[in-house]
Amino acid sequence: MGITLGPNQYGKAEVRLVTVDREGPVHHLKDLTVSTSLRGQLERTHLTGDNADVVATDTQKNTVYAFAAGGVGEVEDFALRLAEHFTGSFEHITGARILISEHAWNRIDVGGTPHDHAFSRPGGEERTTAVTLQDGKAWVVSGLTGLTVLKSTGSEFHGFPRDEYTTLAETDDRILATAVTARWRYSATSGIDWTLSFDEIRRTLLETFATKHSLSLQQTLYAMGEAVLEARPEVAEIRLAMPNKHHFLVDLSPFGLSNENEVFHAADRPYGLIEGTVLRDDEPADAAGLAWYSLPEF
Amino acid sequence: MGITLGPNQYGKAEVRLVTVDREGPVHHLKDLTVSTSLRGQLERTHLTGDNADVVATDTQKNTVYAFAAGGVGEVEDFALRLAEHFTGSFEHITGARILISEHAWNRIDVGGTPHDHAFSRPGGEERTTAVTLQDGKAWVVSGLTGLTVLKSTGSEFHGFPRDEYTTLAETDDRILATAVTARWRYSATSGIDWTLSFDEIRRTLLETFATKHSLSLQQTLYAMGEAVLEARPEVAEIRLAMPNKHHFLVDLSPFGLSNENEVFHAADRPYGLIEGTVLRDDEPADAAGLAWYSLPEF
Amino acid sequence: MGITLGPNQYGKAEVRLVTVDREGPVHHLKDLTVSTSLRGQLERTHLTGDNADVVATDTQKNTVYAFAAGGVGEVEDFALRLAEHFTGSFEHITGARILISEHAWNRIDVGGTPHDHAFSRPGGEERTTAVTLQDGKAWVVSGLTGLTVLKSTGSEFHGFPRDEYTTLAETDDRILATAVTARWRYSATSGIDWTLSFDEIRRTLLETFATKHSLSLQQTLYAMGEAVLEARPEVAEIRLAMPNKHHFLVDLSPFGLSNENEVFHAADRPYGLIEGTVLRDDEPADAAGLAWYSLPEF
Amino acid sequence: MGITLGPNQYGKAEVRLVTVDREGPVHHLKDLTVSTSLRGQLERTHLTGDNADVVATDTQKNTVYAFAAGGVGEVEDFALRLAEHFTGSFEHITGARILISEHAWNRIDVGGTPHDHAFSRPGGEERTTAVTLQDGKAWVVSGLTGLTVLKSTGSEFHGFPRDEYTTLAETDDRILATAVTARWRYSATSGIDWTLSFDEIRRTLLETFATKHSLSLQQTLYAMGEAVLEARPEVAEIRLAMPNKHHFLVDLSPFGLSNENEVFHAADRPYGLIEGTVLRDDEPADAAGLAWYSLPEF
Repeated sequence: MGITLGPNQYGKAEVRLVTVDREGPVHHLKDLTVSTSLRGQLERTHLTGDNADVVATDTQKNTVYAFAAGGVGEVEDFALRLAEHFTGSFEHITGARILISEHAWNRIDVGGTPHDHAFSRPGGEERTTAVTLQDGKAWVVSGLTGLTVLKSTGSEFHGFPRDEYTTLAETDDRILATAVTARWRYSATSGIDWTLSFDEIRRTLLETFATKHSLSLQQTLYAMGEAVLEARPEVAEIRLAMPNKHHFLVDLSPFGLSNENEVFHAADRPYGLIEGTVLRDDEPADAAGLAWYSLPEF
Repeated sequence: MGITLGPNQYGKAEVRLVTVDREGPVHHLKDLTVSTSLRGQLERTHLTGDNADVVATDTQKNTVYAFAAGGVGEVEDFALRLAEHFTGSFEHITGARILISEHAWNRIDVGGTPHDHAFSRPGGEERTTAVTLQDGKAWVVSGLTGLTVLKSTGSEFHGFPRDEYTTLAETDDRILATAVTARWRYSATSGIDWTLSFDEIRRTLLETFATKHSLSLQQTLYAMGEAVLEARPEVAEIRLAMPNKHHFLVDLSPFGLSNENEVFHAADRPYGLIEGTVLRDDEPADAAGLAWYSLPEF
Repeated sequence: MGITLGPNQYGKAEVRLVTVDREGPVHHLKDLTVSTSLRGQLERTHLTGDNADVVATDTQKNTVYAFAAGGVGEVEDFALRLAEHFTGSFEHITGARILISEHAWNRIDVGGTPHDHAFSRPGGEERTTAVTLQDGKAWVVSGLTGLTVLKSTGSEFHGFPRDEYTTLAETDDRILATAVTARWRYSATSGIDWTLSFDEIRRTLLETFATKHSLSLQQTLYAMGEAVLEARPEVAEIRLAMPNKHHFLVDLSPFGLSNENEVFHAADRPYGLIEGTVLRDDEPADAAGLAWYSLPEF
Repeated sequence: MGITLGPNQYGKAEVRLVTVDREGPVHHLKDLTVSTSLRGQLERTHLTGDNADVVATDTQKNTVYAFAAGGVGEVEDFALRLAEHFTGSFEHITGARILISEHAWNRIDVGGTPHDHAFSRPGGEERTTAVTLQDGKAWVVSGLTGLTVLKSTGSEFHGFPRDEYTTLAETDDRILATAVTARWRYSATSGIDWTLSFDEIRRTLLETFATKHSLSLQQTLYAMGEAVLEARPEVAEIRLAMPNKHHFLVDLSPFGLSNENEVFHAADRPYGLIEGTVLRDDEPADAAGLAWYSLPEF
């Protein structure tokens, strides 16, 4: 019996990259947080400290900055370029996983006109991509996080089982609020207009949340995923994590006041957490490959 | 020689209040974080534990929720109502300080039409107010925080003194980025259209940041404050805290690449921090009174 | 072609549970954050909003509190009890995953004696467990997070490949700092003294970090995992995530000062991130089962 | 009527400085976060962008690192050195405010012996100092933050006024938990053994919290401050901010269970917040001077 090295990866996390496209007086901004992870035959450094296979994480950071010269382009393409570079340039590096978060900036409006080079950052929400490349095969999983939404009506919750620990009242009118994290796997790694696809998926998620009458947050989650798959053939699968950000009706009766769904306490913790996958039923079982693979951290 | 009680206050911090105005099919949302602090003759509880003067912080929380029934209105007015209630209802409570942060929600757009009861939260920025009331006199200090802005050109920094510890190069073209916290003291506590005033001050801050050619962040700060005072007679004084969120040009020359203000590293820490006050020079010296007073926490 | 529901789970996240064992004058404290997730045949709520299978997350929370009456015991046993209850009580709930973080408290020392009922919380580090139960089979993965450690010498890094993007200098003496997250899978779910095992694993991780001369953080990581497996037969596998918290030597030469590894800048981002698994080579390939399974969130 | 510049300051915030004292095989570590602010005749940069008086914040950062060469010493002395340097070296810089947080590290224990150069960081709590120097006069305010403590009994709360918004029940046995922030002003700036004083003050705060039977958190706060002033003649004044971290007894009666102060929900928000000052009654009214002065940010 012996002890051995199992799955592993290493890289540089959270490289903060901002680029300015200055061709002409109208500037364009990209604001990214890039994390790189490399995989491969890395036994030597683990077992003996021989670093001949270890592309330094400092080098990985430098590469991110160097590849940004001349323009980043779409985050999916930038991540693919980086993954291909690392796996193509070093003998024992056989896989790479590149995570990018893109932080939006809007132009400041001055007297009704968007300014050429002054921007404000809306905050909150981020566009993401996770590109995995292994032995020449690539997968693109894009997404968004921090899309916080709320419905002040159009949400019910009843019919759930009642056991000795159940005290929750049934309701046919509650506030439904969540902060959507969505990740969708594309069926291809090229030939897709990434930004158009992102914009349409985001619009579909928002519109479905708004218009789908909700009997449970699970039903809303599935409807949102289903609507994306129906509208976007380039998406093979979508995963959604939606915390139920509880808004509890405050009992004002001790103060002689009624509360007709008007005054709520927004709770921090605990919160419900609903996670689910929606996918096409004709997908080959192994289509996802390593698209979602990372070392567990829970 | 003895030991005695000095300045003190107590209250309930961060009451999370959400209200829905449901008159008609179009709902209106208010999302607030409210903190209350009371001041007064509070020696008894400190010295002996006799709580006859201590309005329980739980009661303060209940009062916030109860006062929200029927509608919150403007945050400044809501804070004034609360402060007047506490100081008017309890003999030894002579002062109150109410802090409110308002979190914006936008309507979700469905097929080009804003939805009646579905909202998304932009995140990041908050509208604030701090109302202080002491012995019948009130002050209103409103503001905003988290207004993150960036200029990709139109900012220089040179002519600063050089000593033995100075290594910074002079520049005539740098990125200027900051997250503005602004607090302004109103010259009155009524007769002001709070939301109109807020919207115009915010617009003025943004436009001035965008259009003022900057030789230092201090100059930009002063110009922003000055523009607000010039445009808004109801504002007596404005204080601005503006971190200099450094964007460092990445040296790409080791990789044989030029970097013409295109590729930047966005640093976290340390950061510059510029804080300043702009006020009218005919203000009486004691006009501010207790408007800004709180126990120091740095 | 159609659209279908894939992997999913739901539950109550971050229930904050504190218990006081008051038998006798000496109190004992447990401070836990508990998250529950249930898995099973949950198509009905997703597809139609029929909640007959949905054990409300509020009920899950109540169950956590109710099961704490009479004492929590070890976190591993508490998580197993909860998982068995949920899967044993509801027809279509076939799996459960219970995550617990335990926050330590120390007794306050008064005049050299630990106090009976007054405690201080050291902060920072947490003990964790993740129990998964599916169709009657259970796995226990315990761990710790936030164990921040630093060596001021005894760490080298050299011999890594140099390409056109490599600028990092080789070093034979650097600061090595990291915040260890460790998760280890036990080979059994009973018959283990969980606290003894935790204490010994933690001690082994710390001692190995301190004494192992480091040629790379990967080597340190592997040595730490190997030492745990050698010392603790009840551990089948250990996974470690170790950010390289860079401490950069400050160049003081412009100020006419030398810096013999004395003055460092502690950087926030980016940081290296080393992740790896160490396991026994005679483990059956499927021994881990669903121990590590969760929906990806990256 | 015109517009003018009011109070202002600027500097470099959160310089992360780690030093290793390597004289001999036993290393000593200092881990500090240093913020500098300068004050003075700074109208020129604000009004015209002329930076002849603006000691660049980058220079301030460099100075912090340069002054650390040869050893930091006590944080109070280090802050005084920096403040004296800035105000003594630049004509229009008349004041400085230096804030330092010190992060503790303990030696890792290896086989019962503290290791020479391997450390672990306990996390949570920080030692602080704020040194203000203006026109040659200095003040030292030291403190601590994040000292989280809890009593599982020995705390009552009753006798508070009841109005129409009061629902809180009186109690003669509750959990009392808080995270102490303490700041104390020293009566001198030299001749004090800073670390001894800090250790004794911290011990006094902890012991008083533990042993003082509490009728209100205000009473506990005052007792803690009073005990410090009684024990430490070098302290002129102490300010304490103590959030009441509520632990609510969970109602287990719906489940047929009793709850004899055993099972609690630890709430996040809202929380009570008690702030108070304890000082000597023979202090001259103006002794505090600018010790506490900063621009308000609430």
